[in-house]
Amino acid sequence: MSQWVFNTSLEWKSGEEAVERTAGRPDLPVCGPPEFGGPAGQWTPEHLLVGGVESCLLLTTLYFVEKMKIDLRSYESSAGGTMARTAEGLRFTEMRVSIRARVGAEGDVANLEAAVRKGEKYCPLSAAVRFPVHVELAVSTA
Amino acid sequence: MSQWVFNTSLEWKSGEEAVERTAGRPDLPVCGPPEFGGPAGQWTPEHLLVGGVESCLLLTTLYFVEKMKIDLRSYESSAGGTMARTAEGLRFTEMRVSIRARVGAEGDVANLEAAVRKGEKYCPLSAAVRFPVHVELAVSTA
Repeated sequence: MSQWVFNTSLEWKSGEEAVERTAGRPDLPVCGPPEFGGPAGQWTPEHLLVGGVESCLLLTTLYFVEKMKIDLRSYESSAGGTMARTAEGLRFTEMRVSIRARVGAEGDVANLEAAVRKGEKYCPLSAAVRFPVHVELAVSTA
Repeated sequence: MSQWVFNTSLEWKSGEEAVERTAGRPDLPVCGPPEFGGPAGQWTPEHLLVGGVESCLLLTTLYFVEKMKIDLRSYESSAGGTMARTAEGLRFTEMRVSIRARVGAEGDVANLEAAVRKGEKYCPLSAAVRFPVHVELAVSTA
């Protein structure tokens, strides 16, 4: 069975501040979210999770965009992950991703919709989370 | 019910490169992992997920460190998330986190072990993923 390991390391600095590292990439300072008393200004674990799923959805979609030879001109999205206080503690309950994309030809609109649906299905990070990831797509022609 | 939304946005640049953003924090360039044909040099969604869980575990543990008045002197960890090719596509199967920590007093060793176990239990990101997160801890006194 093919398998891969994605490695990171972490060093606690002080208070709720730390640095995430992974070989060959820039250091990534992280902190606790201000919502829960953390300092402001750095990426939080919660934002890393939401941004990770959001970017994985793009990259998985791009695989199908290439395969289906779609003339994708632009792609932007905004995402929001909702966390609630439950009896078990703080838990993510759902995530929403709104994609705005432009394609080169009218015929690519439906193709991009199909590519995004495949992206949703095969995205390893969407599949890795327990909460539902709702994806909306608005496509226009360039 | 108390709830919070963690927002991010993404802009596709070209190829397998994009930028993740969230208000008030530095831009975070991301790319597809070289393992799957992406370019090198930037954080990937896979690393963001692994680093997110790793840092969430620290931050949740710190909550209990403070509550239990543990004299924590240092905390570092390394993490690895394993991905396998399955019939459903690429899927994370498990993650390992190895923590090396130092405490100020002998009596804090057992307390830190208890704090890490509570951290594991209440960490919102560990709870958000479908795969098991195995945590090892080595504590020494300063």
